Amino acid sequence: MEKPWKRLTGLVAATFTPLTAQGEVDLSVVEPYAEYLVQKQGVKQVFLNGTTGESVSLSVEERKRLAEEWCKIGKGRLDQVVVHVGCPSLKDSRELAQHAAAAGADGIAVISPSFFKPSSSTALRMFLKEIAAAAPCLPFYYYHIPSMTSVHLPARDVVRGIEKEIPSFRGVKFSDQDLLDFGQCVSSCPSDWSLLYGVDEQLLGALAMGATGAVGSTYNYLGRKVDHMLLAFNKGDLVQARAVQVLGFGLPMNKQLMSEVSGLPLGPPRLPLLPCPEQDVRAVVGKLLSILGEE
Amino acid sequence: MEKPWKRLTGLVAATFTPLTAQGEVDLSVVEPYAEYLVQKQGVKQVFLNGTTGESVSLSVEERKRLAEEWCKIGKGRLDQVVVHVGCPSLKDSRELAQHAAAAGADGIAVISPSFFKPSSSTALRMFLKEIAAAAPCLPFYYYHIPSMTSVHLPARDVVRGIEKEIPSFRGVKFSDQDLLDFGQCVSSCPSDWSLLYGVDEQLLGALAMGATGAVGSTYNYLGRKVDHMLLAFNKGDLVQARAVQVLGFGLPMNKQLMSEVSGLPLGPPRLPLLPCPEQDVRAVVGKLLSILGEE
Amino acid sequence: MEKPWKRLTGLVAATFTPLTAQGEVDLSVVEPYAEYLVQKQGVKQVFLNGTTGESVSLSVEERKRLAEEWCKIGKGRLDQVVVHVGCPSLKDSRELAQHAAAAGADGIAVISPSFFKPSSSTALRMFLKEIAAAAPCLPFYYYHIPSMTSVHLPARDVVRGIEKEIPSFRGVKFSDQDLLDFGQCVSSCPSDWSLLYGVDEQLLGALAMGATGAVGSTYNYLGRKVDHMLLAFNKGDLVQARAVQVLGFGLPMNKQLMSEVSGLPLGPPRLPLLPCPEQDVRAVVGKLLSILGEE
Amino acid sequence: MEKPWKRLTGLVAATFTPLTAQGEVDLSVVEPYAEYLVQKQGVKQVFLNGTTGESVSLSVEERKRLAEEWCKIGKGRLDQVVVHVGCPSLKDSRELAQHAAAAGADGIAVISPSFFKPSSSTALRMFLKEIAAAAPCLPFYYYHIPSMTSVHLPARDVVRGIEKEIPSFRGVKFSDQDLLDFGQCVSSCPSDWSLLYGVDEQLLGALAMGATGAVGSTYNYLGRKVDHMLLAFNKGDLVQARAVQVLGFGLPMNKQLMSEVSGLPLGPPRLPLLPCPEQDVRAVVGKLLSILGEE
Repeated sequence: MEKPWKRLTGLVAATFTPLTAQGEVDLSVVEPYAEYLVQKQGVKQVFLNGTTGESVSLSVEERKRLAEEWCKIGKGRLDQVVVHVGCPSLKDSRELAQHAAAAGADGIAVISPSFFKPSSSTALRMFLKEIAAAAPCLPFYYYHIPSMTSVHLPARDVVRGIEKEIPSFRGVKFSDQDLLDFGQCVSSCPSDWSLLYGVDEQLLGALAMGATGAVGSTYNYLGRKVDHMLLAFNKGDLVQARAVQVLGFGLPMNKQLMSEVSGLPLGPPRLPLLPCPEQDVRAVVGKLLSILGEE
Repeated sequence: MEKPWKRLTGLVAATFTPLTAQGEVDLSVVEPYAEYLVQKQGVKQVFLNGTTGESVSLSVEERKRLAEEWCKIGKGRLDQVVVHVGCPSLKDSRELAQHAAAAGADGIAVISPSFFKPSSSTALRMFLKEIAAAAPCLPFYYYHIPSMTSVHLPARDVVRGIEKEIPSFRGVKFSDQDLLDFGQCVSSCPSDWSLLYGVDEQLLGALAMGATGAVGSTYNYLGRKVDHMLLAFNKGDLVQARAVQVLGFGLPMNKQLMSEVSGLPLGPPRLPLLPCPEQDVRAVVGKLLSILGEE
Repeated sequence: MEKPWKRLTGLVAATFTPLTAQGEVDLSVVEPYAEYLVQKQGVKQVFLNGTTGESVSLSVEERKRLAEEWCKIGKGRLDQVVVHVGCPSLKDSRELAQHAAAAGADGIAVISPSFFKPSSSTALRMFLKEIAAAAPCLPFYYYHIPSMTSVHLPARDVVRGIEKEIPSFRGVKFSDQDLLDFGQCVSSCPSDWSLLYGVDEQLLGALAMGATGAVGSTYNYLGRKVDHMLLAFNKGDLVQARAVQVLGFGLPMNKQLMSEVSGLPLGPPRLPLLPCPEQDVRAVVGKLLSILGEE
Repeated sequence: MEKPWKRLTGLVAATFTPLTAQGEVDLSVVEPYAEYLVQKQGVKQVFLNGTTGESVSLSVEERKRLAEEWCKIGKGRLDQVVVHVGCPSLKDSRELAQHAAAAGADGIAVISPSFFKPSSSTALRMFLKEIAAAAPCLPFYYYHIPSMTSVHLPARDVVRGIEKEIPSFRGVKFSDQDLLDFGQCVSSCPSDWSLLYGVDEQLLGALAMGATGAVGSTYNYLGRKVDHMLLAFNKGDLVQARAVQVLGFGLPMNKQLMSEVSGLPLGPPRLPLLPCPEQDVRAVVGKLLSILGEE
């Protein structure tokens, strides 16, 4: 039986992939991870196997096992588990989409292929459509992140009218600084879409432009803090909202910070990413704790 | 006698340079232009000889004559006349800065040189400092516009602590989409600086991040309209604020739109810019008038 | 028993992946394809599962089957079968490297991961080393193609001294226009390396800089023609060498051209690539045949 | 009386602008500079007020004085004095073109404007045409340098058929690594054009593609050395040609090297460029002298 489709609002944690010291996926961390998010950060929505989850560095098999585990653990605990299923290979993407549906995910998302770049928004839509068709019972999100893909098709061109071609289309995870493009997605989209902003440090500007929520790695360890910003923003108190500072880091640093702050053994990133030098992490953890302590 | 230094808030029109059909600067249009801004658009602050004014396509002599005329005409009519004096040649920039002071300008601004790109924010600050020193009695603004200059030094690095080196430094005209960088300028600057945003279509996001005002070409012909957005924003009515749509155009189209909407004979742009095809202008004017008529 | 390691010189065809009309890999085309290269183009070296082969659009399983088939078919017919085994996932890459060795390949090559970009040449070398170690009995080539990966680490920094870390390292497939970087690879490398140039239209310049050979999609259908250029160049007849014009096309056009010129049923490219419009292909085929007829 | 138009072949030195310690143009260095080029480097052709000459950092007046001095000093000493007259302002460019003709220059060249980028090769040609028309009695060269201008119009599109619009058009100074684009300029141009290559480190590749000569800052102090490369190349001895190593440096380093090697007091670069740290210059001078000593 299919679940009802819920709109994504508020904060969504883009999850890290827990690895053992030997670099293997460690499923045993998923449960305490989910508990941490809910209990300590008040975050009950996760975005799995995305950029933060280093999905491109995982094998198809590893991605499936992670999706299964989070869906299983999330049942009753989390409100939504959205799984990123994009791959350079359409074949692999379709397989992951079907698998996510079978595993009980609440939605799927896809990043544009980037080695071979779609030559037009039409080409990209054709690619997305084939994947969505493999899991038509799940809400489908386009994940826009040109800084990583070097695919510079405006999101507005990709999503305008796309619901006619992809009936399950329900929104965008928009990870770019171009708020004009984001604003045009907001103003032209059906009212039941989710418009999720993904550049954590610029969230306030995106809220002004109409974001319904946010997906980011920062919310793993700053969920409560940023929730205060959302509250302040909703009350119209921009001065207080601006006071919540979110710092921007690369993925390895972010992963190590989360380990430090949460106590969860998330392990190192995978090659080609390298762990940050210990002393750099020390310095940032100190700064971060002082910010957290400010509350 | 020196004028008191006023902070820049609200809307500032980045003025176009009026040219005759033969392509010569037409000073006779300056007075009706100033009248139009004040009477029809409620805009009493202008930013002269910037990108919109095609200053790099003008000779040093032409820039001086424009500055003189606007300062003369502006007296008693306009609240502030800020003159952009940046040039690739430091020598020319210093000459223009001195001239602006003598002509009675209310402030000067400088864009980074872009053919030879400063190798660091230190190099850029040294360049800015030499120019500011040629007119120490005028507030000095850094004009950040990486999309044109390809100089990608974060504005925060350029301006942090710059008041110690340039005592007349008073703010930034920030024409870039990176609201994180903008936000960091906001949060680290002295309270008497002006933080002017320059990507008209993204103004709402910048206001949320703490912009004190805006400089743009759009405000030449949409000043009243955008003022409604500012009002709505200040009342905390973001839904209404979002309803004010500003369209983004290239400079030639913008200049032709202003001629059409205002009735002022601003003439064509200069080479290497080409005028827009008449039919394209027609189509946009129609769209624009329908937006203006919505009020 | 291990094969002796042969240096790569002359022309190497970067092979297309034959697909059925339904988009499935069609192994039955491999044999006539190999025959065509040998008989009609005089090309007896192939580079498999690279950019031309759309390897990122293939599943790991499909790449294995192609490698097996080409190695089997190539035995006795081809001089060298080099298999590209690079993947965003190190795990998958290592698996493909081991598989290539077992299948009887003559060498393996790896492109840098590009979604997560190595932060330094050190990080990239660590990534390459892990893969090379999975097939230490095969010559290993670094495949440098920044236009696709947006990884802009100079090849000279990646390869200088790399033989100390990767004993099986034997050369570079250099697909970039920067002949300075290429020249520095040439002048600093051990004498038994292969320096293979990969921008077909610029081959003459690269030969002057010291290329030992060339890998490209063009040599699938212009092998004999370009061989004349090599001959002319080696005789010092640059005027005649320059007379051999190679045209540059996108991958879909190239694949369709090869189908037309060779008569082999290679099928369409995979999404996100789209086939070229039939009329565009017609026009180019005409031009190409006239060039070929010039001989 | 007009001079006969000579084709540019061999090496052309892109001259530095001599500055006093106070940063003012020092015309007294021009004569010993010209003597040095002729006597020590065997170079009798100069390219004035280009990138190496920091022309964008000079005022119009300074550029005129330099052009006058070099033309005067060059008479009877130098074979050709080509003056770059491009400016962001068309007005200034035309003035400099007329001035160069009056001063007795042998040719003029123009870089594309770069703050306002021409939207098409047509727009750029219109800009070039207006300047050429101001000095129709001088050979006109297009100076292609996208790395500085960020104007990425292929040179082949700019120059194909341009002689029909600009009768005085005679060639290209091509300062980019794209040898495919360069090769297409070569193969499509009239036989009396000069095709001058401007990336010194990649000259050998460009010679293979058909360059008639080279313009660069390196030839100020490595003229004799590089002449050996030309000789070796012309004899078909590529191995020896490759042995001539040219190193690539930024402008400040290059200017300081020239001062060191030649003993001419060229002074520092102008802001926004900064002089190189003394110790860096020391290190490179040592390396350079050892290369020069190898002969």
